[in-house]
Amino acid sequence: MFVTFEGIDGSGKTTQVRRLAERLRAEGRDPLVAREPGGAALSERVRALLLDETLEVAPMAELLLFSAARAQLVEEKIRPALAAGRPVLCDRFYDSTTAYQGAGRALAAEGDASPAAGGGDDEGGESWLGRFHRRVTGGLVPARTFLLRLDPEEALRRREDAQQQSSTAPDRMEAGPARFHQRVADAYDALAARHPERFCVLDATEPPEALHAAIWEKVASLPRAADGGR
Amino acid sequence: MFVTFEGIDGSGKTTQVRRLAERLRAEGRDPLVAREPGGAALSERVRALLLDETLEVAPMAELLLFSAARAQLVEEKIRPALAAGRPVLCDRFYDSTTAYQGAGRALAAEGDASPAAGGGDDEGGESWLGRFHRRVTGGLVPARTFLLRLDPEEALRRREDAQQQSSTAPDRMEAGPARFHQRVADAYDALAARHPERFCVLDATEPPEALHAAIWEKVASLPRAADGGR
Repeated sequence: MFVTFEGIDGSGKTTQVRRLAERLRAEGRDPLVAREPGGAALSERVRALLLDETLEVAPMAELLLFSAARAQLVEEKIRPALAAGRPVLCDRFYDSTTAYQGAGRALAAEGDASPAAGGGDDEGGESWLGRFHRRVTGGLVPARTFLLRLDPEEALRRREDAQQQSSTAPDRMEAGPARFHQRVADAYDALAARHPERFCVLDATEPPEALHAAIWEKVASLPRAADGGR
Repeated sequence: MFVTFEGIDGSGKTTQVRRLAERLRAEGRDPLVAREPGGAALSERVRALLLDETLEVAPMAELLLFSAARAQLVEEKIRPALAAGRPVLCDRFYDSTTAYQGAGRALAAEGDASPAAGGGDDEGGESWLGRFHRRVTGGLVPARTFLLRLDPEEALRRREDAQQQSSTAPDRMEAGPARFHQRVADAYDALAARHPERFCVLDATEPPEALHAAIWEKVASLPRAADGGR
């Protein structure tokens, strides 16, 4: 049972991951809970690089660093947990990379027109990034992905409120311009439309308790030892 | 003029890069000299992760970290230098990733048999790794790659001598078993055979001065502003 949570910053993913983990524990399960990037020693070190505002990070380097952190998390933590029959909950997974780096940073289409840049390998209807993600994870696909859908302007308002309360500054991802966040939100919608068998789209403005109930209903119906993709 | 140096550890790449840079400076040129992984602030931080023996690093994570360091180096240093008409010399580039991670760690063929892992995208005769490298570098291909060819057993003897003299321990890459180094050496031979237009294969047991003379002859014949691949 491998479940991921996606959505733009401020959509309430972390709250829902926490509630689902609590519910699973109450049922006697022992979930592995991870956030991306992170969750393994190497992945946390990569996270620190990505959050270091003093470093110049090119879009492609950013995509590759997120993916390196993910490859390590999958190999070191997620696969062993799934093999042991534990549920795995992930706060962001490769759909975040498709939305933020692929669409937000416009890398999904980059180079496709030029044969020298790898163009022409996108026949068959799947993007190079989709195939890349499966290579990075060794074919591991979430059994269910919950997309907490939120209007980017509403999300911005939520983040500003939260930052005012905690006096924190926006990080590298949060600080993008409005059109960056709109591209990310649009990419999430496109992913959900493309993978209806995996995505469950929820309205993030619903009360957290109602969202949790909807998530729990979907999760309870999943087969317990599914390791989607292998 | 973008020139890369490849070969197993102990083959004398660093010496030849230094000599070529000196020769170019004597001719009034201002070469950018970089070693991989490294050469940009982010890339050096990634290098430190790769050399940290306390970290567990999965083969795919390793491949992605080397590639992230490369993407940053290309974007931040190599492209601007080439655009300014400077020669660029690189001690290792993507052929190292093909040889060490692709062949040495056996990632080049991984998953190709399984459709879920991205199989079926290798039609057309080029490996996924070859296309991946071009994406990482945005299509930048070296104008000339010098392969300093050395028998892995001879290389091991050279490294042991050097380590005895400097009392250093072998790093993550150097410490692999003999068959790892043989796979790396074989992969370099295969790359050179596949890209004769780019590779120049040299016998690393020749005296450094003879090697330098051969390299200089090839470099002097390259067009000055070539930015191979664009």
